[in-house]
Amino acid sequence: MEEKSPHRSLVETVLARSGFASTARIEIEAVAPGAVDLRVEMSDAVTQFDGFFHGGLIATLADCAGGGAGATAEPMTTRVVTTNLQVTFMKPARGRSIVARAVCAHPGRALRVSEVDLITRDGDKETRVATATVTLMAVP
Amino acid sequence: MEEKSPHRSLVETVLARSGFASTARIEIEAVAPGAVDLRVEMSDAVTQFDGFFHGGLIATLADCAGGGAGATAEPMTTRVVTTNLQVTFMKPARGRSIVARAVCAHPGRALRVSEVDLITRDGDKETRVATATVTLMAVP
Amino acid sequence: MEEKSPHRSLVETVLARSGFASTARIEIEAVAPGAVDLRVEMSDAVTQFDGFFHGGLIATLADCAGGGAGATAEPMTTRVVTTNLQVTFMKPARGRSIVARAVCAHPGRALRVSEVDLITRDGDKETRVATATVTLMAVP
Amino acid sequence: MEEKSPHRSLVETVLARSGFASTARIEIEAVAPGAVDLRVEMSDAVTQFDGFFHGGLIATLADCAGGGAGATAEPMTTRVVTTNLQVTFMKPARGRSIVARAVCAHPGRALRVSEVDLITRDGDKETRVATATVTLMAVP
Repeated sequence: MEEKSPHRSLVETVLARSGFASTARIEIEAVAPGAVDLRVEMSDAVTQFDGFFHGGLIATLADCAGGGAGATAEPMTTRVVTTNLQVTFMKPARGRSIVARAVCAHPGRALRVSEVDLITRDGDKETRVATATVTLMAVP
Repeated sequence: MEEKSPHRSLVETVLARSGFASTARIEIEAVAPGAVDLRVEMSDAVTQFDGFFHGGLIATLADCAGGGAGATAEPMTTRVVTTNLQVTFMKPARGRSIVARAVCAHPGRALRVSEVDLITRDGDKETRVATATVTLMAVP
Repeated sequence: MEEKSPHRSLVETVLARSGFASTARIEIEAVAPGAVDLRVEMSDAVTQFDGFFHGGLIATLADCAGGGAGATAEPMTTRVVTTNLQVTFMKPARGRSIVARAVCAHPGRALRVSEVDLITRDGDKETRVATATVTLMAVP
Repeated sequence: MEEKSPHRSLVETVLARSGFASTARIEIEAVAPGAVDLRVEMSDAVTQFDGFFHGGLIATLADCAGGGAGATAEPMTTRVVTTNLQVTFMKPARGRSIVARAVCAHPGRALRVSEVDLITRDGDKETRVATATVTLMAVP
């Protein structure tokens, strides 16, 4: 039996304790040190007026994945808070699910920066629909 | 009996047709041409891990209010989509409710820009906890 | 004879020691605690291809004014560095001069946030052409 | 003799006609369709108060490279203007030169998005010091 990594445990704990992450139906897809993939399945609960994934849902997913990547980057910090969340939308977010792939590009002591690709999936097809930069402050 | 303004009707329609706006429990506080205030009450459904309003919820509120302000600015457009959502977090978002006050600063034909103040309320006390800029493209 | 305020002295010192602030021809218009106005006069040295003020010049002006407002906000810090510079362009920046009016909206101990209006002047006419948010980290 | 590509010609023309690009001492390093690298050598003209590359210079370089990548992406447009310039600074920008590597991630008809890595060089050593997202509107 594989033991759960401390990185995955951290992401699970933060998501489980965040009411809005459950409300937004965010699920963990993969966790590695400084790299976190989160996913939301399409449903009526997450749409904007055309039936695509809502911009706010995409921002929420980016924030959670970016925060997770920042917190799990070595050296791991117990706590980060987002200072800046910048999302640039490129295409309508249609698909069966949407994944945020976050990588921590700068694991600084005080400041951490994660870059996030937002990708919709429809069968085998993946489409990058948005990009986000999440700036985080490590909380002592 | 006061008739409902076309601006308020537009915001109501867009929110009602957006599943994630309901999921995020967004309510209308005030609508004027180019100025939209939206509100979310505190509950377990909208928190981050410390029990404050979640950053994703704040981004969602900013996006909806900024979009509403952009769409209702004169000349009214039937449709806008967000191209850039930038949220800068200044303080922990604790309070009984949080309000997004959005004003359209630039109602261009192709591009619209809304500025959004995010304010928490606790009794009589209001605290500005974040600021956002929402860039929108008018869809013909 | 009026003595120079410590806030103005700080802004003067930082600009004088920053080669690129001179290169960009930035001049001080007004300094108060947490509020700094900087100006650039139109010339061939600061244009983009249509002869308007260049986006990079506008970003530079926003960065310097936002940094100045952040550093001079009480309690004054000796040093700040920019972590995020976000500029949203609304109109072509034509005019005889351009002014950045920066106010520090959040003078935190670790993190400071300045909001900047970018305004062109042509005779008596002022036009807001861009808006910027500058996030700063106080350096101990 | 190799003929100059229309992509390189476009970037050369835009930079030559932009006074502030010369003022900021921007040079072309490489141009391919949708991918533009620009460079600035270290000198007293481009510094902030510690002698590193100035944040405004970095923003200017990102804007020019991101605009170039957006304009040269297929189908080529004759004109783009920046609507959003977002720069996230990660490390002090020390080095002999700084390069902006821009790639157009979304060459839309109306809207284009370029992602830019800002990299300092010191001998053989390259350090990524900042990241930028440039959103552009194609002008008919």
